[in-house]
Amino acid sequence: MERTVEVIFSPLLLNLYDLKSKQVVVIDILRATSTICAALHKGAKSIIPVMDLEDALQYQEKGYITGGERNGIKIESFDLGNSPREYDDFDVMGRDIVLTTTNGTKCVELSKRAGAKEIYAGSFFNAQVLAEHLLSTGDNVILFCAGWKNRVNMEDSLFAGYMIQLLSPTLKPTGDSSQIALGIANSGMDDPVKYLEKASHAERFKRLGVTDLPYCLQRDIHPTLARLEDGSIVHK
Amino acid sequence: MERTVEVIFSPLLLNLYDLKSKQVVVIDILRATSTICAALHKGAKSIIPVMDLEDALQYQEKGYITGGERNGIKIESFDLGNSPREYDDFDVMGRDIVLTTTNGTKCVELSKRAGAKEIYAGSFFNAQVLAEHLLSTGDNVILFCAGWKNRVNMEDSLFAGYMIQLLSPTLKPTGDSSQIALGIANSGMDDPVKYLEKASHAERFKRLGVTDLPYCLQRDIHPTLARLEDGSIVHK
Repeated sequence: MERTVEVIFSPLLLNLYDLKSKQVVVIDILRATSTICAALHKGAKSIIPVMDLEDALQYQEKGYITGGERNGIKIESFDLGNSPREYDDFDVMGRDIVLTTTNGTKCVELSKRAGAKEIYAGSFFNAQVLAEHLLSTGDNVILFCAGWKNRVNMEDSLFAGYMIQLLSPTLKPTGDSSQIALGIANSGMDDPVKYLEKASHAERFKRLGVTDLPYCLQRDIHPTLARLEDGSIVHK
Repeated sequence: MERTVEVIFSPLLLNLYDLKSKQVVVIDILRATSTICAALHKGAKSIIPVMDLEDALQYQEKGYITGGERNGIKIESFDLGNSPREYDDFDVMGRDIVLTTTNGTKCVELSKRAGAKEIYAGSFFNAQVLAEHLLSTGDNVILFCAGWKNRVNMEDSLFAGYMIQLLSPTLKPTGDSSQIALGIANSGMDDPVKYLEKASHAERFKRLGVTDLPYCLQRDIHPTLARLEDGSIVHK
């Protein structure tokens, strides 16, 4: 039977899709899944994604490195925010990190609850290695965009389309969302920075003084296969 | 203050948007809002959109013409299905029609409940006259895509982008969804039939033997301003 790849544009649309026995890629380019890939590639032992701030604080008391943001801003008392570049200056080698963010980390939890077979963190940093691995499984794939506070966003959609480019023709883009994402990548991947100039996230970053956007669009600079295992995301 | 136009890709995303004091265009190209425009332009007095089949049957007992579908198929015992072309052969002059469909009509009701200032049925059939009217109001605009069973679909997204083309630059496309829709129109409006070849609705129509797709993509052939007033959609 023909293998398929589908796209979910928002957590609010998750229930329309069947995740069971599928490989699920959670996408939060700005910045949770980019940060996860960067931290693992810099040598972190594991990333524990948690939805609630309270849970993260409990991990902190046990000695975990804490990372995270709310509305794009670092959480006070946390070691790190949600910029993948912070992991250049912070020694994470062999450490466990607990991460909580506005959008991305909750999608990992939601995918688990929905019965996904395997769950990966996807970003431009690990696109190629992730695509190769997904192709090597015999399974169908779901690309699950975190969006921004449940709204559809441009950067996650662009990446979903890029993944489809990498997975085609072995996996067939299925459903209108996958065709829309593919169309976005076909017109946006020539110059992703320019494509995202009008993205609300680009405007938000500008307002907050965050300069991570071009960094997060670099391809395959942190080629780690970031997979959820027993509640933690680890380098597989 | 700059006027804005936003896009909602699915009824499940409605609650993320504020409809109050805004002009809302409900979009269900295949086929509810196309059918509404065709019927009004053919002389129907009003279209009453209802969500439940039971409600439609009660109207039928009172002598209303009944139109509608479930899963793309005409409802048994109804006068008409949901093809805009049926209104060519059926005398609707001066008649009231009750319409219930899988996707589109419920969005009219949802928009009303969400406090929209005015609600219009939008389709390629009335795009120009609708855009001119929207520009003449001083209000912000929401383009509300019905989708297919709450999933994002290509034809409604394409039309939303086309409306943005008509409303710009007076209205500023706001939020990532509007940028995505505009991108779809920029690449798809040169040849909408070709663009929609891979749409799931095109495949569904093929399976059902429905040949309405090219017809529903014709621009401005039923130039009626179809507006909700006291529970009925009427030619304004």
